Amino acid sequence: MTASVTVSPAELRRLAVAALSAAGAQAQHAAWTADILVEGDMMGLGTHGVLRLLTYCERLRLGGIKGAADIAVERRAASLALVDGDNGLGPAVAMAALEAGLAMVADSGMAYLGCRESNHLGALAPYGLKACAAGYVLICGTNASTTIAPWGGREARLGNNPLSIAAPCPGSTESGGPHFLLDMAMSVAARGKIRKALDEGQPIPEGWAVDAAGKPTTDPAAALSGFLLPFGGHKGSGLSLAVDMLSGVLSGARFLTDISPWTDYPERPCGTGHFFLLIDPKRLLGAEAYDAAIAHFRDIVQTTPPADTAQPVQLPGQREQERRAAALSSGVAIPGDLLAQIEALAAA
Amino acid sequence: MTASVTVSPAELRRLAVAALSAAGAQAQHAAWTADILVEGDMMGLGTHGVLRLLTYCERLRLGGIKGAADIAVERRAASLALVDGDNGLGPAVAMAALEAGLAMVADSGMAYLGCRESNHLGALAPYGLKACAAGYVLICGTNASTTIAPWGGREARLGNNPLSIAAPCPGSTESGGPHFLLDMAMSVAARGKIRKALDEGQPIPEGWAVDAAGKPTTDPAAALSGFLLPFGGHKGSGLSLAVDMLSGVLSGARFLTDISPWTDYPERPCGTGHFFLLIDPKRLLGAEAYDAAIAHFRDIVQTTPPADTAQPVQLPGQREQERRAAALSSGVAIPGDLLAQIEALAAA
Repeated sequence: MTASVTVSPAELRRLAVAALSAAGAQAQHAAWTADILVEGDMMGLGTHGVLRLLTYCERLRLGGIKGAADIAVERRAASLALVDGDNGLGPAVAMAALEAGLAMVADSGMAYLGCRESNHLGALAPYGLKACAAGYVLICGTNASTTIAPWGGREARLGNNPLSIAAPCPGSTESGGPHFLLDMAMSVAARGKIRKALDEGQPIPEGWAVDAAGKPTTDPAAALSGFLLPFGGHKGSGLSLAVDMLSGVLSGARFLTDISPWTDYPERPCGTGHFFLLIDPKRLLGAEAYDAAIAHFRDIVQTTPPADTAQPVQLPGQREQERRAAALSSGVAIPGDLLAQIEALAAA
Repeated sequence: MTASVTVSPAELRRLAVAALSAAGAQAQHAAWTADILVEGDMMGLGTHGVLRLLTYCERLRLGGIKGAADIAVERRAASLALVDGDNGLGPAVAMAALEAGLAMVADSGMAYLGCRESNHLGALAPYGLKACAAGYVLICGTNASTTIAPWGGREARLGNNPLSIAAPCPGSTESGGPHFLLDMAMSVAARGKIRKALDEGQPIPEGWAVDAAGKPTTDPAAALSGFLLPFGGHKGSGLSLAVDMLSGVLSGARFLTDISPWTDYPERPCGTGHFFLLIDPKRLLGAEAYDAAIAHFRDIVQTTPPADTAQPVQLPGQREQERRAAALSSGVAIPGDLLAQIEALAAA
């Protein structure tokens, strides 16, 4: 790992757009994708930031992702729509869905959009933040290729499917107080952390993963050829299944073992599914009552006496929003070698 | 604990209705509440079954719950409604919401209903099963009085708020194959298990709870005066907060520390909030495509090679539905002393 370089978000977006365009992405898809990935880096979610350009661009070149996908939103009812991603860039499919969803929820007070024929969409938190900025509650999730065994099983048939639940808080500004922004995956530890332990020659803690035979292991290599353990045992397993039901089954997408893993087959469409579920809290309660309630909710959480007085209790996603505010004023730190790779892709 | 007695579901419902009626519940509210509690027992969820009649009836008599509550559904949009429970029995408020929601989702394809001024509603799984039987996906949850510290805190400011996600599966019958029926609370272990350890003079495992000072404990008494730990640390804490945001804030109900604990103040309204979110999968995908997809999903899960060959991998809620089918044909086992108490309430 080289030293990190600080780049402005605008410059990082410009580079990302150039890299995606050079690999064949059309302008709007490149802009949406660059935005979502840079948002990930700004929030400190580096594993879901511009690092992903390397695989996104490779897959665009191989034809595994379509750079000029014809993303189509099919309305099924006032509050229901299906989005056919046509194997486009995941963040482009997701942003097309979110933009359609924001119009639907403004109109009917509620919306569910299921996306099919999509790909990796970056982190979920950036979508939650956009919904909050527009004043809506967002529940969203995505499925992913299999890395987890359903509880009681010894074969990976389930993805580490993240779920995000976000709610707008009044007084939250570009540089100010946080919205409620939960974004969680279903494994005890991320696969990226196991890869890092392998790179550093370190064992992993017990309880993170099992080997290919389903036996507990602290060997990162054995863990990577085995599978991740869900957090909370049967609870995390059940929740990950539920996220796949909502993102894969309900959207008409692929799910579970039918998703093509881009790690093994970068040249093939993944068939990933996502869902976006929006609710207008002001339509339900009125603006004043909602704002007062969620501000009171936030206050109760944040004023909880902390276990460690140096660490005040935070709202979910608060740290990520603080990092984002810092990145807006001071730039984003990116590993130097990664920046060089992106510059090379942008100049291609 | 006395030996258990086997009772038919119909007889148990009759007794429950009589007990609730004798305590002042009006006929429809008594019928709904008896049904939900007996469903809990049939699924093997005894902590959320007719055992609850003891506290429900006590609170009815004390005026803490209103037996003739005027439950009102206020439609805010085609897919949005608020339900004012008027401090009625929780299962009655919840069933009034679910019945209104089933009509709304049949009409518009989607519905969110937020309930306020409610009370303990039993287990969530019975509501999920009713939605599945009607052909709809249900996401629902409730808040509860505080037993958990938000992550990083040392004061209970958060309930052990359960979340349920259910989806109908084709071929599921009263006595047959399972629907997808996730129902999970947010603590590592239920408070009832800690009470049981205390009764039995046993220590509890590490990681279940902390004492009043926020220190880890294996002493069940210290745990009961302290608070429960959320499963998955910050993940379970964040998810429980999200369930309270959806059930408490969005519904205009009380939330977090504002909920009145019925254990301490049985004579006061709790102000509990719930939410019910329904989606019509057939409106989205068409009946044939949805049925094929969810059946395929279920097959992939159930055919996962098991870690223990004697324990096939199950769909969430499968065991509960198997128990329910057995109870329909063979009756429900209830502790003899509990049955005697209910009979006494019914004869009052």
